Amino acid sequence: MSYKNFPMVPRVIFGRGSFNQLNEILAPKRLSISAPFIYLIDDVFKNNTELTSRISLYYDDEIVFISTNEEPKTTQVDELVEKIILNTKARPSGIIGIGGGSILDLAKAVSIMLTNEGEAKDYQGWDLVKNPAIYHVGIPTISGTGAEVSRTTVLTGPEKKLGINSDFTPFDQVILDSELTKDVPKDQWFYTGMDCYIHCIESLNGSYLNSFSQSYGEKSLELCKEIFLDNSANISDVEAQEKLMMASWHGGMSIAYSQVGVAHAMSYGLSYLLGTKHGIGNCIVFDHLEEFYPEGVALFKEMKMKHNIILPQNVCAQLSNEEFDIMIDVALSLEPLWENAIGKNWKKTITREKLKALYQKM
Amino acid sequence: MSYKNFPMVPRVIFGRGSFNQLNEILAPKRLSISAPFIYLIDDVFKNNTELTSRISLYYDDEIVFISTNEEPKTTQVDELVEKIILNTKARPSGIIGIGGGSILDLAKAVSIMLTNEGEAKDYQGWDLVKNPAIYHVGIPTISGTGAEVSRTTVLTGPEKKLGINSDFTPFDQVILDSELTKDVPKDQWFYTGMDCYIHCIESLNGSYLNSFSQSYGEKSLELCKEIFLDNSANISDVEAQEKLMMASWHGGMSIAYSQVGVAHAMSYGLSYLLGTKHGIGNCIVFDHLEEFYPEGVALFKEMKMKHNIILPQNVCAQLSNEEFDIMIDVALSLEPLWENAIGKNWKKTITREKLKALYQKM
Repeated sequence: MSYKNFPMVPRVIFGRGSFNQLNEILAPKRLSISAPFIYLIDDVFKNNTELTSRISLYYDDEIVFISTNEEPKTTQVDELVEKIILNTKARPSGIIGIGGGSILDLAKAVSIMLTNEGEAKDYQGWDLVKNPAIYHVGIPTISGTGAEVSRTTVLTGPEKKLGINSDFTPFDQVILDSELTKDVPKDQWFYTGMDCYIHCIESLNGSYLNSFSQSYGEKSLELCKEIFLDNSANISDVEAQEKLMMASWHGGMSIAYSQVGVAHAMSYGLSYLLGTKHGIGNCIVFDHLEEFYPEGVALFKEMKMKHNIILPQNVCAQLSNEEFDIMIDVALSLEPLWENAIGKNWKKTITREKLKALYQKM
Repeated sequence: MSYKNFPMVPRVIFGRGSFNQLNEILAPKRLSISAPFIYLIDDVFKNNTELTSRISLYYDDEIVFISTNEEPKTTQVDELVEKIILNTKARPSGIIGIGGGSILDLAKAVSIMLTNEGEAKDYQGWDLVKNPAIYHVGIPTISGTGAEVSRTTVLTGPEKKLGINSDFTPFDQVILDSELTKDVPKDQWFYTGMDCYIHCIESLNGSYLNSFSQSYGEKSLELCKEIFLDNSANISDVEAQEKLMMASWHGGMSIAYSQVGVAHAMSYGLSYLLGTKHGIGNCIVFDHLEEFYPEGVALFKEMKMKHNIILPQNVCAQLSNEEFDIMIDVALSLEPLWENAIGKNWKKTITREKLKALYQKM
């Protein structure tokens, strides 16, 4: 038996307002005046001078605002990399991702593709990356995905939705400043928070579970319950934002050393075909997974009710058989997720018919 | 306000038997055939072929067995470093520490002193180390100290007991194999486990607390309670060993981003003067700290009773005034610990008389 030698984020700052330390952190990492820092920032911050005014641009440093209306794509990574190569005199000093899971995943993928030949789609899978990425920094502005600690970057490619899982993927530096999450709209706050909650349920109920993952998963779950359930009235907004940031961190650590499960496998299918965003996609799927995660789903329904969240219904109602097949192919291709959720013999019970019946309910 | 940019251990393996992966982890880190790996191993493993037979020695690789009857000293570090420099043709490829907190701290200190001039005592304090340490690996064989994740290495110097706290201190690689802890004698298991428990109480009740430290501290405390209190009958030995290993890890993370408190400050004094080992020293001190940590001490007494632990009494009974002064000087010099425990105005209440009265009870 061989255990994973997990790469952890080697530097982390935590604290309200710690974003102010970004400039001083980057300064010693500048390789030369022709090697710029490239900031990939969620375009919701485009006119937000409270954030952008705190970034000091020097020489050829550049901010690229990116829409997150769609899930990140391998072609989007390739375009960003090409643009960066064309526009810079030297390989950049670093990539700084400021945003939610989509932006963080893009920042990780771009930093990898600046030092590895070919196209991003060539690296979707496990341990295909050959060269270390360039220095990259992750600054989450919404909490739940765990992208800030994970060794993956989930991309929609021409053939599949799958992560670039590698030891070179994790950020070199993470800044956890909960103040950046204060203006997240409520529905998005819920969907992304539920990504974390679902990570925990999938990790804690999976066959890959071990004491390492369990301790992180339990703590993350405890924090989610505190934030989204009974105690949520007793903690301040700031505390809730900080706790959700830590829930995301611990949830990410938990799946890093185990695996996600049924909700993620099926939501990847949904997202691949329909472009459904990851957070809401997970919620749509998880809502119908009582048979796999009875307690977890019951609690989820409670949280949904408490926060008056109305999920889209019948999103698969109009789909053709071919379309169902596409979703089922994507979902079934994620073998480690099914093995974790169901066990080694998962293929006996997880048939195409079974998945189709489940998708039809959604 | 400036937040600490905390260096995390960049690689970690967790799992029963993961020690078997040590050789393959080290292989790519060998710099040349003249640059050996030096193993610093607790001498309780001297005739333990179950452990030593799994270490592959090549070229000039060497195992150095080290007694941990005494707390690690700066002079001991200097001697080890000198011996290594004299006996090796090139700077070593890495230092591997296999043991409890003492050995892990020695391994960290030796790896630092191989690349920094002068003597170990010159670096006791905060952020005095100038050059990166050589590659160093930590493999705990007893759980509780948190030395496997911390950015300090606590040494007794000619003038003080104080850590080398630096960004270069943390291990480059940690292997968490709970199987290595299976033969720890019961009293040692308790004392070292209580080091972890006391970390949590000090961190969670300190003024430096933040949501990052809190989430780690709470999880660690929860695990300690599971192991040492009510549920301990319901978990298997293996599970208890794995959980204590995680408790130590999370406890170490918790204090890494906050600070310890009264028990550690006073136990450093005890240890400096009397050579009391850290684990038992903490217990002797903590037993008398009801006024600072009422709930924590009550629970500690419960755990002590449950496991039939009899602590030494009256260890300070025969001390002279000069000796009390020495202990008090060491304890009072640890200003951040007192500030964390009592607050900014700690000097108003923590007088020499106060500390003497406390020591006299021990």
